[in-house]
Amino acid sequence: MRKYVAGLDFGTNSMRLLLVNLSTGREVIEIVEKYPSGRDGVIVDSKNPHLARQNPADYIVCLIKAGKKLSRKMRLKSIKADEVIGIGVDTTGSTPIPVDKNLMPLSFRREFRNNKNAMAWLWKDHTSADEAEEITNLARKIRPQYLSKIGGVYSSEWFFSKILHLARCDRKVFEESASFVELCDFIPALLTGCNNPAKVLRSICAAGHKAMYNEDWGGLPDEDFLEALDTGFKNLRSKLYERAYPAGTKAGTLTKYWAKKLGLAEGTPVSVGAFDAHMGAVGAGIKENVLVKIMGTSTCDIMIFPKDKNLPDIPGLCGIVQDSVVPGFIGLEAGQSAVGDIFYWFLKTFLPEKRKDVFNYYTRLARNVRPGTSGLICLDWHNGNRTVLVDQKLTGLIAGLTLNTRAEEFYRALVEATGFGARVIIERLSEYGVKVDSIIACGGLAEKNSLLMQVYADITGKEFKIAFSKQTCALGAAMFGAVAAGKEKSGFENVQQVQEKICRFKPQTYKPNQSNYLIYDRIYQNYKKLHDMFGIPTYTGNLYNVMKDMLRIQADTIKR
Amino acid sequence: MRKYVAGLDFGTNSMRLLLVNLSTGREVIEIVEKYPSGRDGVIVDSKNPHLARQNPADYIVCLIKAGKKLSRKMRLKSIKADEVIGIGVDTTGSTPIPVDKNLMPLSFRREFRNNKNAMAWLWKDHTSADEAEEITNLARKIRPQYLSKIGGVYSSEWFFSKILHLARCDRKVFEESASFVELCDFIPALLTGCNNPAKVLRSICAAGHKAMYNEDWGGLPDEDFLEALDTGFKNLRSKLYERAYPAGTKAGTLTKYWAKKLGLAEGTPVSVGAFDAHMGAVGAGIKENVLVKIMGTSTCDIMIFPKDKNLPDIPGLCGIVQDSVVPGFIGLEAGQSAVGDIFYWFLKTFLPEKRKDVFNYYTRLARNVRPGTSGLICLDWHNGNRTVLVDQKLTGLIAGLTLNTRAEEFYRALVEATGFGARVIIERLSEYGVKVDSIIACGGLAEKNSLLMQVYADITGKEFKIAFSKQTCALGAAMFGAVAAGKEKSGFENVQQVQEKICRFKPQTYKPNQSNYLIYDRIYQNYKKLHDMFGIPTYTGNLYNVMKDMLRIQADTIKR
Repeated sequence: MRKYVAGLDFGTNSMRLLLVNLSTGREVIEIVEKYPSGRDGVIVDSKNPHLARQNPADYIVCLIKAGKKLSRKMRLKSIKADEVIGIGVDTTGSTPIPVDKNLMPLSFRREFRNNKNAMAWLWKDHTSADEAEEITNLARKIRPQYLSKIGGVYSSEWFFSKILHLARCDRKVFEESASFVELCDFIPALLTGCNNPAKVLRSICAAGHKAMYNEDWGGLPDEDFLEALDTGFKNLRSKLYERAYPAGTKAGTLTKYWAKKLGLAEGTPVSVGAFDAHMGAVGAGIKENVLVKIMGTSTCDIMIFPKDKNLPDIPGLCGIVQDSVVPGFIGLEAGQSAVGDIFYWFLKTFLPEKRKDVFNYYTRLARNVRPGTSGLICLDWHNGNRTVLVDQKLTGLIAGLTLNTRAEEFYRALVEATGFGARVIIERLSEYGVKVDSIIACGGLAEKNSLLMQVYADITGKEFKIAFSKQTCALGAAMFGAVAAGKEKSGFENVQQVQEKICRFKPQTYKPNQSNYLIYDRIYQNYKKLHDMFGIPTYTGNLYNVMKDMLRIQADTIKR
Repeated sequence: MRKYVAGLDFGTNSMRLLLVNLSTGREVIEIVEKYPSGRDGVIVDSKNPHLARQNPADYIVCLIKAGKKLSRKMRLKSIKADEVIGIGVDTTGSTPIPVDKNLMPLSFRREFRNNKNAMAWLWKDHTSADEAEEITNLARKIRPQYLSKIGGVYSSEWFFSKILHLARCDRKVFEESASFVELCDFIPALLTGCNNPAKVLRSICAAGHKAMYNEDWGGLPDEDFLEALDTGFKNLRSKLYERAYPAGTKAGTLTKYWAKKLGLAEGTPVSVGAFDAHMGAVGAGIKENVLVKIMGTSTCDIMIFPKDKNLPDIPGLCGIVQDSVVPGFIGLEAGQSAVGDIFYWFLKTFLPEKRKDVFNYYTRLARNVRPGTSGLICLDWHNGNRTVLVDQKLTGLIAGLTLNTRAEEFYRALVEATGFGARVIIERLSEYGVKVDSIIACGGLAEKNSLLMQVYADITGKEFKIAFSKQTCALGAAMFGAVAAGKEKSGFENVQQVQEKICRFKPQTYKPNQSNYLIYDRIYQNYKKLHDMFGIPTYTGNLYNVMKDMLRIQADTIKR
């Protein structure tokens, strides 16, 4: 009997459904559904650029539409419903939804229709910047341990900032909420017919990375801490949960209703969910000492580290959570606030004539700029710095400009800067005992931009492989569907065994060029000086030699 | 009887002849002649980008051509030869010419024809960078006083660097040279029939600013110093001169030959020459406490200070020379290595589509960017920093870039950076007792770019006037022609009296806007931090607050 697993990936603008053949690893069906509401699926507010919500109805509408297409395609491929043995789910996050006691999103109630505060609070909603700061400051004072696993700063993109902001800006919605459920917990609950917030199996990925959940301090933050944030806020604790579960745990089985809508079999196991980047890392083939970089407008970096080895707190890392990526391992999350966004900014800003192929045109020109010869050095902080400085209030910088500087040199310097930013993360991990032997890249940039990949290999001195799948998130989710199905059905004991079977790489890998590595290493020393001088409050020193050293590097490399 | 004076201005690419009515101040005739040799008058070398020479024959050819046109135009305007009572000369510099014992340029000899080393070494020839460094280092060790009047660093654009380089790269030309004559000394000598290098009246402007001439240490550098630079170099001293003279001193009178060629009267007094910027400052209307900025691709800043008051050495100022601008005053020279060149670089680099009106287009857009709102801050060091750091090995920088930064904001930040650079110079002068009450700007940028002028006024907090004349250099030269003619002929005792009569300003002046001044003052504090941190070897500190402060300024100014 052939065996398939399904992965459901709920992104920012659309959801994807992937059906994977568990014997061959082939992705046999892929369906994409765009969310119908808002601007590309995001509910915005013309008066508040920080607001970003999603209409929970969109998730259900898209699931039903995708299910229809899936049924048709399965018929065409003669795949039977009972050949699909498990379902996994990944979503964006932290994207909490206020729900009533029956797990119904409050925005489904007539009284809260069109109330954005009753909808899903999308990860990139930044309305709670003040609350994030409050949480950080309070934790610094009375619960420093809470910050030790999240890089020292609690973000406005995260669970408690959003709920605290809701409590203040819309008391009615806050009080009517029986609980707050992450989207990655909501979807499995929906599919398995769970209608009691207290019974939802919560994702340890979401809980640990965004809600300061850690077994070392008894799960979620304690009532005293919450009460210190705001009067009455301690009551929130009892509305939430005591335990969280890793992906691969069976959340339940598919209800009759959803089996019909999706064209799958009633009783099919559904896995506990997780965030997209973390499942993407699994789909890309993460293992010990291998860093996965999910590269797009920004970058998310994921590592795993054995639970039985001793891992110290790593300053500046935005998440260190047990079982959040591969069960049995500590999951580590880092990231760069802008990568592709910086390149796009450059092209949009300085080349307004909109050549159709401007990306390729500049990549071609930049390819001919040899390392070091431009004399330029950048800081890639156009959208702040996530890892290791955890500081949004930083900005981009370029030095080394002369009257001979060409546009493609500027562009390449931006590419290189993101590579130096990547090296800072790798070095921080290594300093604390997390060794990076090689790197797997996935996402749009990794697939399309071979210049970028070679520059990264040359800067980091590490080999870069590219994940074969274009849908590593949905693929990772599907793989956890196989785990949730159990060994008897799937033949796999754990997700590592599924990875062995399924994860593949593109034939072309990027190996570091030693002579380029040495040039970049000299530039990196200057990058680090700028990085520390502008980024670290306690750092003092002098930058007199930076411009001079860049001119020397330029002179040395032009000669060759 | 109507009285006229003639000014001859020998620039980098062309020479100009200006005839000025001494009673009305009107510029009645203007003639421009382009040098026929090389690339736009500059002899270059495809193998050495630092080389820049001029063919001395070009000066003579252009003089003769201009003379023909002058004769014709004077006839048309019924101006008689003897109504022109004096001639003044200004040129680029340091532009020394190797000459034989009859004051003939060595390149006129058959054996040295086409030998670039026997031609005029144009000011912007940078082949002697190593020699400049040697001179600086030696002076620092054994004659620190030599550096105290030139900002601490001897330049490759200056007299002795060039001659020392010649001595090493072309021994034959060096040894055949009976002397080396600055172009601004050569032209008056030519016109007055002087054919003995020892009898040429040398300009104190050239001698003091570029050849370390100062009466305090007995004129030019001593033989021991020269010998320490290179064996036998002490002999150079006797080939040069003992005394130098201010402009306005009569160098001699027009020969019969040149009277005929120019259509002027034999015996017309010719003034001792000076450099273009210095005479330009006089033509623009310089006086005590008024800074003249000659603004083009780069900027030259000139001040004067009474000789009878005590002036300390001013670190970083590239020239402090008695009588070099207005006799009776100490002339002070400062400058910015690139101003217009930076704007041109931006437009050329990032807007390759070559809109015809791109300069105006961007100026229009940049005008709408209110001070502070871009959050950007630049260092205007794309071509190094002349004053006050005297360091070519510095480069341009921009910080504050975000994903929302627009091209016109970048452009305006460059404009502002040059304004901050201008403020640094003004503050350095003030610190040492040279007070700047107001500013006169002249040159192409000052005339064409009202945005630039308003930004400068707002940044410096000073009123900017624009000189009326488009030919302030030739006008200044002509004014010294009047002084050389003597009071009896001209009616003027000194050049200040001529200025009173002739110098005028454009009706529009630029007054600082107080609220913009306050915003720019906040930005300037950050500019100074970057300036000192990248530019001063002994400065240490931290830049953690620079990006944050720029973001605060942005938030504060966007609100308004």
